[in-house]
Amino acid sequence: MRIEGKQYQTIWIKAGDNRVVEVIDQRKLPFSLEIFDIKTIGDACFAIKEMVVRGAPLIGVTAAYGMYLSLFEFDGETDFTDFINRKSGEIKATRPTAVNLAFAVDAIKSFILENRHRKDLSEIVLAKVEELKQLEISYSERIGEFGLKLIEEIYEKKQQTVNILTHCNAGWLACIDWGTATAPIYKAFRKGIPVHVWVDETRPRNQGARLTAFELGEEGVPHTVIPDNTGGHLMQHKMADLVIVGSDRTTANGDVANKIGTYLKALAAFDNNVPFYVALPSSTFDFTMKDGLTEIPIEQRNPDEVAEMEGVVDGQIQTVRIIPEKSPVVNYGFDVTPARLVTGLITERGICKATREDILRLFPENQK
Amino acid sequence: MRIEGKQYQTIWIKAGDNRVVEVIDQRKLPFSLEIFDIKTIGDACFAIKEMVVRGAPLIGVTAAYGMYLSLFEFDGETDFTDFINRKSGEIKATRPTAVNLAFAVDAIKSFILENRHRKDLSEIVLAKVEELKQLEISYSERIGEFGLKLIEEIYEKKQQTVNILTHCNAGWLACIDWGTATAPIYKAFRKGIPVHVWVDETRPRNQGARLTAFELGEEGVPHTVIPDNTGGHLMQHKMADLVIVGSDRTTANGDVANKIGTYLKALAAFDNNVPFYVALPSSTFDFTMKDGLTEIPIEQRNPDEVAEMEGVVDGQIQTVRIIPEKSPVVNYGFDVTPARLVTGLITERGICKATREDILRLFPENQK
Repeated sequence: MRIEGKQYQTIWIKAGDNRVVEVIDQRKLPFSLEIFDIKTIGDACFAIKEMVVRGAPLIGVTAAYGMYLSLFEFDGETDFTDFINRKSGEIKATRPTAVNLAFAVDAIKSFILENRHRKDLSEIVLAKVEELKQLEISYSERIGEFGLKLIEEIYEKKQQTVNILTHCNAGWLACIDWGTATAPIYKAFRKGIPVHVWVDETRPRNQGARLTAFELGEEGVPHTVIPDNTGGHLMQHKMADLVIVGSDRTTANGDVANKIGTYLKALAAFDNNVPFYVALPSSTFDFTMKDGLTEIPIEQRNPDEVAEMEGVVDGQIQTVRIIPEKSPVVNYGFDVTPARLVTGLITERGICKATREDILRLFPENQK
Repeated sequence: MRIEGKQYQTIWIKAGDNRVVEVIDQRKLPFSLEIFDIKTIGDACFAIKEMVVRGAPLIGVTAAYGMYLSLFEFDGETDFTDFINRKSGEIKATRPTAVNLAFAVDAIKSFILENRHRKDLSEIVLAKVEELKQLEISYSERIGEFGLKLIEEIYEKKQQTVNILTHCNAGWLACIDWGTATAPIYKAFRKGIPVHVWVDETRPRNQGARLTAFELGEEGVPHTVIPDNTGGHLMQHKMADLVIVGSDRTTANGDVANKIGTYLKALAAFDNNVPFYVALPSSTFDFTMKDGLTEIPIEQRNPDEVAEMEGVVDGQIQTVRIIPEKSPVVNYGFDVTPARLVTGLITERGICKATREDILRLFPENQK
């Protein structure tokens, strides 16, 4: 999608240098557009852990590139399989909640080990990673097409601007292109359907205010930033027609882990009969888990993300402390929305209910 | 209550000068403790509108002092009744949602007009305002005593630290002393019951992170600041035993207007069987209204409160912009929690259900 009118994806191989992966440094957005170079799997771990890149699909693809880069670090003395296993373990440990990470790393790891004796290993691994990346883009596009129908249906009934609330950033910046939750919005906007997006600020890291607002603005999509506290009030007053969020991990039964606070919006949507959809590629499903509340690990992050706030003053990025010095802080990254509150899941294979049966209807290969 | 070990109330007549009212400047907390002088009703309007003072009970008392100060501004040429009506109208218009404001202003206005021919008018009006202030303090204390029983009951069953979640600041800083939602907590803490408070940050103005965390810290009450998004996760995992919030206006049927986001916490409490109580003095009831959702006016505040964030860097207060320049913002101050989600109301006359019948049982004088 576009930044200042120029077409971007979130991650790409550097022109003329196959051993450097470039990403948009999302820690700096929306205040400045900077490119971050990933040259080693250590750089990839750093980029994921420190949220240079974030968003389940993008984390997965970044980790896949990281596995590719690790090939150039093998010193030939240690055991190759041990080395690859160790590196894949390191990168999988960077973010515990997003399942796409493990999915992508395991896929590339298997591919590497199967082809370990090939002379063109690095070339074919890179091709495999690029294929994974293209797959994620096509998933986003298809999620967009399926989700578009939901927006069209509301517009046909209402004949007025469709108001969509989203939480955090499940936009193209969280993916490679198009996004998950935003893909239907971009598709609708490009088709000329009048849409307006309520953008949850999404404390503590403000991915809504910083990233979703930024990317919608750069694409020209009408939107308004709101504090996370506001969504309930909007839904009570019929000012939101639809909620679409992303997911970091969704269980076989349809329980959805997503950015902390998603559960509160799902409760409000349920209480006010507002459809609540989750947009996710198949790589976000974790078919090994049933009960999201007890099984999905919830990451605790640095309390400074809550205690401090980054913003701009006189064109300079500045960090201010916003909490009394003596007060402790806790920072859970995600919460789990029980399937009973989810109207449906928008996937690259279509829309299904958040039930085991209906998920398996779309993804029968996961039936055991 | 205490700041740096010294006893304070939020508002008082300046020592040695009956024509100056002093308040703690709450815009500066927790970063610095500054006293703001109110010398005219215009100053009082400014203090309320700009949130030098905030919190429904404190707004009411500040407005009452403002009406007292207006007496010194009467020029003797205009009609006194017109003058008092105009001034009361001006101060009532400063904040539309908090009903205590209208309640206090109308009480003092009636008293002034009834006694308009008394030579000692300003003295007896001041005495009346001080009486109102003392009444608010006694209400807070009694709310504390009644609410204490709820905490004691939980502690008796649990025999472990009682975890209480609160939203915004319904502490002593929102009142004169003790607070509303915090009064039971202070009473329990002083009685030796182990309590721990989850303090919602409360975007956009961060009254939780800035004021509630500060006042609990100064009193030594264990607490942790959390983003507003976190409460649902805590309740899902049985990490909150009780929610207590304040109110800016509560209807005759028990619908509760309070800081935006309260409704989301009430939904989460209801969904997880966590008791959800609202602590309020009788001055917060609006017996003229039944349906909170359609009748209570919801204030929209300056979008800059969302787009900018104030904090400290190198000991200096600094404001940073946290939202892309081009993105619009909306800032609703309050939402309404329907009575069906409220376990009970803690008032100075006891605890009642959030139903018309049970509220009138405690306040039968409002039966029409």
